[in-house]
Amino acid sequence: MHRAERDPFDWIDARHERLRAAGLVRTLRPRRADASLTDLAGNDYLGLSRHPEVTEAAAEAARVWGAGATGSRLVSGSTGLHARLEESLAEFCGFEAALVFSSGYAANLAAVTALSGPVGSGTLLVSDEGNHASLIDGCRLARAEKTVVPHADPEAVRKTLAAHGGRALAITDSVFSVDGDAAPLSALAAVCREAGAALLVDDAHGLGVLGEGGRGAVHAAGLAGAPDVVTTVTLSKSLGSQGGAVLGPARVIAHLVSTARTFIFDTGLAPAAAGAALAALGVLRREPERAHRVRAVARELHRRVTEAGLRAVRPDAAVVSVQAPSPEAAVQWAADCREAGLAVGCFRPPSVPDGISRLRLTARADLSDAAVARAAGTVVATAPAV
Amino acid sequence: MHRAERDPFDWIDARHERLRAAGLVRTLRPRRADASLTDLAGNDYLGLSRHPEVTEAAAEAARVWGAGATGSRLVSGSTGLHARLEESLAEFCGFEAALVFSSGYAANLAAVTALSGPVGSGTLLVSDEGNHASLIDGCRLARAEKTVVPHADPEAVRKTLAAHGGRALAITDSVFSVDGDAAPLSALAAVCREAGAALLVDDAHGLGVLGEGGRGAVHAAGLAGAPDVVTTVTLSKSLGSQGGAVLGPARVIAHLVSTARTFIFDTGLAPAAAGAALAALGVLRREPERAHRVRAVARELHRRVTEAGLRAVRPDAAVVSVQAPSPEAAVQWAADCREAGLAVGCFRPPSVPDGISRLRLTARADLSDAAVARAAGTVVATAPAV
Ligand SMILES: Cc1ncc(COP(=O)(O)O)c(C=O)c1O
Ligand SMILES: Cc1ncc(COP(=O)(O)O)c(C=O)c1O
Repeated sequence: MHRAERDPFDWIDARHERLRAAGLVRTLRPRRADASLTDLAGNDYLGLSRHPEVTEAAAEAARVWGAGATGSRLVSGSTGLHARLEESLAEFCGFEAALVFSSGYAANLAAVTALSGPVGSGTLLVSDEGNHASLIDGCRLARAEKTVVPHADPEAVRKTLAAHGGRALAITDSVFSVDGDAAPLSALAAVCREAGAALLVDDAHGLGVLGEGGRGAVHAAGLAGAPDVVTTVTLSKSLGSQGGAVLGPARVIAHLVSTARTFIFDTGLAPAAAGAALAALGVLRREPERAHRVRAVARELHRRVTEAGLRAVRPDAAVVSVQAPSPEAAVQWAADCREAGLAVGCFRPPSVPDGISRLRLTARADLSDAAVARAAGTVVATAPAV
Repeated sequence: MHRAERDPFDWIDARHERLRAAGLVRTLRPRRADASLTDLAGNDYLGLSRHPEVTEAAAEAARVWGAGATGSRLVSGSTGLHARLEESLAEFCGFEAALVFSSGYAANLAAVTALSGPVGSGTLLVSDEGNHASLIDGCRLARAEKTVVPHADPEAVRKTLAAHGGRALAITDSVFSVDGDAAPLSALAAVCREAGAALLVDDAHGLGVLGEGGRGAVHAAGLAGAPDVVTTVTLSKSLGSQGGAVLGPARVIAHLVSTARTFIFDTGLAPAAAGAALAALGVLRREPERAHRVRAVARELHRRVTEAGLRAVRPDAAVVSVQAPSPEAAVQWAADCREAGLAVGCFRPPSVPDGISRLRLTARADLSDAAVARAAGTVVATAPAV
């Protein structure tokens, strides 16, 4: 073949065929604004994304500050709104300081890379095998040694830290996004302290759901504000907006401001998103029972589907994960639910580390008992024969 | 020292001291909503971030769709608004398809990693040494061989591709963010085609500024819609909002939907940001002269500061980069400008690949001739003695 006629993307077609054969092609299905579906697919755990106070705050922020931040947070992209959001997040979650990013993904990349120590320091990153993709990518970006440890296994972390001896950072989700199970944070913090290691916790699915009034899993474990613990959160789940934040000791936050690439080289979070998250925090402070309610809804969903014979992990937070026999069956099951008026998540490889496809149901604080019963009934009625 | 008392973040203090000694500590300075400063620091090139149509679209989107997308684009985070924005971006820029991300940073990570071919394919990434941090991070994340080539040097790319022989992806900014100089896109495309390599262009600073009616540098080079060219853009600069997009052949976009980690594992762009960007595109279509005006303003700024004896790179787009004698002098210069009512960017290591600190002035289409003259006058009057 003549060189100039080579098709540089021919491998994409072959790859696509393999994905299709494995039932792993993904397609976008835009939703409509007036969607009549009951949503158990999104992560809007507290129902705040459409709360009038929250959407009004977004609208007002766009009017007052403009539609975009206009530049990096270090150049023109820091507004008074960002500063207030950072103060409010730190205060609510019990940390000395906070730094807001354009996404939770960016916050995780920043936290892992910036905390992996100076190059050549021999810092070891110890990462749970179930960690979110953004933490994994952070580990890949960091110029540090990495060890992946078995899921939710403090003893494995202890042994790894002991064998290493030097500087280390242990990294874990607080609530794992696929199965909704919680990490053993107290035990992890104990083995980290014993070894003089730092602990980084991604509390994306804990904020607004766990802890006193939704202060998160790290707060619930009594670790908020500890000098050796750093937490990341996202503004895109319980707070119903977009963005992410790193929470920790002031010196850690100052270090991120001066060195984290996804902070320095990224445009600041849009004012509307910052304003919405700030308003959502305000609602959560005033109505702490929302956190309680979302957990009760999750337990009730779990009770109903398991009593009907489905396999689901007991939820530690708001996510209820129900096993499906195959990727294709999971896709069909989710489609049948949708047909019956219920939107559910469908997780297939590579989103599931163990290769088992699942329906992922997310509890919402604003669902009535009747709606929960109806939703569980739909999941059961559409379940594939095993 | 007893193990349990080890301070895992002690190295941060030492690092901070070194940064301070080198004049490289960064601090956040939130701006006020009513800021009376003339802004030559942000990237709101067309002045659309505060355009009433744009901010009203942001407000309306939050009201109609909610403050957040509520989940990954593949689960619950795709709205009709995202779909319209993707169609509109592809159409405007002249590509078959587009995919919107939560940031330009995320779009770049996705494009580089997903286009570096199947693992083990021997794809070579050929990256300009002046490329943006997000492209560099994409190269670091990609499981592919990398070669960094001299700045804006198609001959170096040609030689690298020829020596490699196999699959390759050449990667370049269209307009480099530090100096504002343009990449030799036509020559790069030619050497890529000769070698059967693909070309990835980050048109973050070209969209809205270069090409017919602001269709970007890739469009201007006649490369839009080519089967072997993929472009990324950001919604956070000329479009005054937040977010990013990848534009390219439909099969490339479909491949990203199924495989790009910063797409699959990230919450969708907030509706307000999508709505604002869509409205900004509408204004730009209606008022194509904005793109012409911003280039004229940049040339005028450059003319005025160089005629006064300052060293600045001739602007190919909207960025005018003025050299400073040291990081400390750059910080002081920017502070003096601010004192005189002018916000300018101040770029220091590690944001400048060559280690030379700069003031970075960004032209805006909505500045009057008098405002441009005043701004240039301020930069000249506050310049450090050399
Ligand atoms: C555990 C976890 N961490 C981080 C993220 C990334 O946050 P964001 O979507 O706000 O970028 C997500 C979800 O998207 C998540 O589930
Ligand atoms: C050349 C270039 N590419 C990508 C980005 C990232 O875009 P965003 O800030 O929208 O994430 C930027 C600026 O931030 C940039 O200057």
